[in-house]
Amino acid sequence: MGDDKRFTVRPVATVTSSRREPIDDDWASVTARITLLAPYGADSLVGLGAFSHVEVIFVFDGVDPAAVHTGARRPRGNPQWPETGIFAQRAKDRPNRLGLCTCEVLSVDDGGLEVRGLDAIDGTPVLDIKPYMIEFAPRTAVRQPAWSHELMADYF
Amino acid sequence: MGDDKRFTVRPVATVTSSRREPIDDDWASVTARITLLAPYGADSLVGLGAFSHVEVIFVFDGVDPAAVHTGARRPRGNPQWPETGIFAQRAKDRPNRLGLCTCEVLSVDDGGLEVRGLDAIDGTPVLDIKPYMIEFAPRTAVRQPAWSHELMADYF
Repeated sequence: MGDDKRFTVRPVATVTSSRREPIDDDWASVTARITLLAPYGADSLVGLGAFSHVEVIFVFDGVDPAAVHTGARRPRGNPQWPETGIFAQRAKDRPNRLGLCTCEVLSVDDGGLEVRGLDAIDGTPVLDIKPYMIEFAPRTAVRQPAWSHELMADYF
Repeated sequence: MGDDKRFTVRPVATVTSSRREPIDDDWASVTARITLLAPYGADSLVGLGAFSHVEVIFVFDGVDPAAVHTGARRPRGNPQWPETGIFAQRAKDRPNRLGLCTCEVLSVDDGGLEVRGLDAIDGTPVLDIKPYMIEFAPRTAVRQPAWSHELMADYF
């Protein structure tokens, strides 16, 4: 079944980061600023400082839409890892090019927030910021394949 | 600073759920199906069964775009909870109307997957499915305000 629905989304904020290239690893120590765009202001962030973490949805806008994968391939092209569907990995060249990261809130001010561990490069458009609530964490045991632990070993 | 960027996103899948109305609570027991839309097929899901959970990004398409909040208000209109910015709460009438939920994978087949605890109603358009990796969980202590625990008490 096809579907002709489309939605237009607009950035609510932009990332400023010392990291300007999409490097695979070592995101944990990276601090970044998320600066609100008009019409969003201080009132949209009221109370956010009471949360330790946020979930940030952003666009991998550096990915050419023509380069998006829709099927299966080995994560990072690593021959030691299995053929894996695009919805079973978190690669950036994915349908709709949406990124998602839980990161630590360092501070909140009238125009945005400072965060640590956001895996988005400088200039990345942010589509949403949600406060992290422990109730949204998995409520049953987490299981994931060995390749994903190997891939993530040095990511954060 | 304003920003004229826009992005067009298209559903990759649709939710089928016994829940047809946006009820506030008791999502934990709800099972739903996420059915892929063309051109996505079985290859996009290869290996997903090795993961216990997925993160699903979807559109609250039942929300009138004109009803979206951009500032602060009390969550669920509850006078006992503080005025809170839209980016410090997870209300559905939010900029870009994006929803996000971590849910349990019950089974995967060629055309989609069955999940438990997805807080999206029947017919909801899905924009992305990402495998949950424990490495993306908060790496420092989680802190959140009392009102959020009260709001979430019966959510799942």
